[in-house]
Amino acid sequence: MQNSIKLNMSRRIRRTPFTNKVEECGVSDFTVVNHMLLPKGFKNSVEEDYWHLSQHVQIWDVSCQRQVQITGPDAKKLVQLLTPRSIKKMETGKCFYIPMIDENAGMINDPVLLKLDDDMFWISIADSDILLWAKGIAIGSNLNVNIIEPDVFPLAVQGPRSEELMIKVFGDKIKKIKFFNFKVFDFNGTKQIIARSGYSKEDGFEIYFKGYEDYFDSTLLGEQLWSSIWEAGKEFNISPGCPNLIDRIEAGLMSYGNDFTKENNPLECNLDKYCNPTESHSFIGKKALRKIQMEGIKQKMRGIIFDGEPCAPTGKPLEVYSENNDKIGQIASGIYSPRIKKNVGLSMILKNYWNIGQNVIVKRLDGARNQGIITTLPFPK
Amino acid sequence: MQNSIKLNMSRRIRRTPFTNKVEECGVSDFTVVNHMLLPKGFKNSVEEDYWHLSQHVQIWDVSCQRQVQITGPDAKKLVQLLTPRSIKKMETGKCFYIPMIDENAGMINDPVLLKLDDDMFWISIADSDILLWAKGIAIGSNLNVNIIEPDVFPLAVQGPRSEELMIKVFGDKIKKIKFFNFKVFDFNGTKQIIARSGYSKEDGFEIYFKGYEDYFDSTLLGEQLWSSIWEAGKEFNISPGCPNLIDRIEAGLMSYGNDFTKENNPLECNLDKYCNPTESHSFIGKKALRKIQMEGIKQKMRGIIFDGEPCAPTGKPLEVYSENNDKIGQIASGIYSPRIKKNVGLSMILKNYWNIGQNVIVKRLDGARNQGIITTLPFPK
Repeated sequence: MQNSIKLNMSRRIRRTPFTNKVEECGVSDFTVVNHMLLPKGFKNSVEEDYWHLSQHVQIWDVSCQRQVQITGPDAKKLVQLLTPRSIKKMETGKCFYIPMIDENAGMINDPVLLKLDDDMFWISIADSDILLWAKGIAIGSNLNVNIIEPDVFPLAVQGPRSEELMIKVFGDKIKKIKFFNFKVFDFNGTKQIIARSGYSKEDGFEIYFKGYEDYFDSTLLGEQLWSSIWEAGKEFNISPGCPNLIDRIEAGLMSYGNDFTKENNPLECNLDKYCNPTESHSFIGKKALRKIQMEGIKQKMRGIIFDGEPCAPTGKPLEVYSENNDKIGQIASGIYSPRIKKNVGLSMILKNYWNIGQNVIVKRLDGARNQGIITTLPFPK
Repeated sequence: MQNSIKLNMSRRIRRTPFTNKVEECGVSDFTVVNHMLLPKGFKNSVEEDYWHLSQHVQIWDVSCQRQVQITGPDAKKLVQLLTPRSIKKMETGKCFYIPMIDENAGMINDPVLLKLDDDMFWISIADSDILLWAKGIAIGSNLNVNIIEPDVFPLAVQGPRSEELMIKVFGDKIKKIKFFNFKVFDFNGTKQIIARSGYSKEDGFEIYFKGYEDYFDSTLLGEQLWSSIWEAGKEFNISPGCPNLIDRIEAGLMSYGNDFTKENNPLECNLDKYCNPTESHSFIGKKALRKIQMEGIKQKMRGIIFDGEPCAPTGKPLEVYSENNDKIGQIASGIYSPRIKKNVGLSMILKNYWNIGQNVIVKRLDGARNQGIITTLPFPK
């Protein structure tokens, strides 16, 4: 029933410079992230898109990955306050995946941080208004920074043929971008930041397309960018795409708001390596995080492989039980994997049950109880 | 084309304790507000719902009006920092409509503030993460407060028969609630806050339904509440509803993100009365707001009545021009009013053109240029 429900459109649910193109390509579903449209499906099934993504190349409108731009003398100081991960040695041109936590060590976002200069950062965010958070902290702490949402609309090129395609459009310099690094490129007389990154387990790039304040002007240039990539991509069998649920679950790529929320801390999310307890820098939530580190966590994000009918995404979590019928978790992201030939899902799992190989029961929405097993993240190849 | 696009469901787009009921009632459209589902249509057209709302009574799931609960010794101090409107004389049991602005005096929300006690407030928000903003300010300023999003899911009862219906469910005490006041009522052994308020120009109430941390328990009690109102409402011809675009435009009720954004200040939004320049209290954005007050504003929210084909909501703003073909505004919220028998819209309009009675041109998406006229807000009766 719910799969036939329409999305009511309004200015508040912002269009992107690529939305016209996405509609031309036959988008079938949208979701809303950061008050902006994110395409969630085209003509093909999620499974067809999964195979295509693993073999060819796709173009994704991920403009909803909004940037929070922090500049000014205290920019570095503020950014460091916002994450447990040390940015002391971060160099210009680098991308850092960072947990962001509140005073209780609850996750409020898991963005990618880009260092554009010693006093200039972009935080490329998941779905929460980090602009307001960062501004609130800065105003309260009287820091000398300027914080804005710039007119930047990320466009992702993902899949094994990404590099060939990007070289065709932007030249050989593309090869020099290492994973989670970025470089600046020319496009039609503008400077554009391109990173080797993306929300898939394939090779890929994210063009941090800088448009203009005026939506019409941004769309004009944005559509030129889209078309350049599209035309160059034809020989590589390019298709329109979006973050693929099968691919991202197999890769263990979590989604904020789905797989974890502000009720979860970064240790539960397997982000220990960004929460070194010996770090000397201060950050919001440090005390709460240390307490959790001392006491140990009660649950942890795991993969689950489970039997039964092929699982279709529903929007409703599936409950996970122990063999003794205790509730031990819930799968917010679950789907059938045609590669593993079973259903796969992500779930926080209580401590006594989080060991790899543990048997569990997944309760389906129709009441069926399917056998499952705890597995590593990413899922085994 | 875009009206046939589906909303992709996920846990991140949160269901409410009433979503099952809303689905049973045949919801056709949702939008997303504060990471939560807001129904936007049922079986009837917007126009049919408009007439129904003006004559009978409706039940609306407005759970997406999330509460930001601020408690503690510095609660009042923090709340006052968050708005230009003085809360000095605010009494417990009152609701205040408040502009919230950032350091540039840009609007970041326009919530309703409820005073539950001298050290306890709820901010009932429009679509932005005020939880993060308030927490950021509090942490930065080292204020002694506790800020959470409580398990509260507003359910609105709107329309001229609201009072009769609410008396039937909650007793005669309902009559004693004055506009923008609230009182506490019993429901199935729980205490529930009910305010006389709502996002329509009709009489109505908002039940700040307090559920439980557990979604299942909240849904159980929430569905009992929904059913009690539904059953009692049958004799008043109750129907499921949602904020009605025709009704709210006629009433001049603005929508944050649609009609105004953080690019607009409260004076542009006709909220002068909440921005008294002689107020002595300090608040974020005071300096910027004073500067704007001294210099005067360049545009202001107005109503527009315009000719041409009946306007259907599209999600794309309509541009507004002067008779000399200068762009002077854009209508984000526009629709045909069956009462006025013309199209109506809300738009910021540049200073030289904002006088009542000014002729303007509205450019339709198909290129047609329709005659329009600037009018008061609310629209003339």
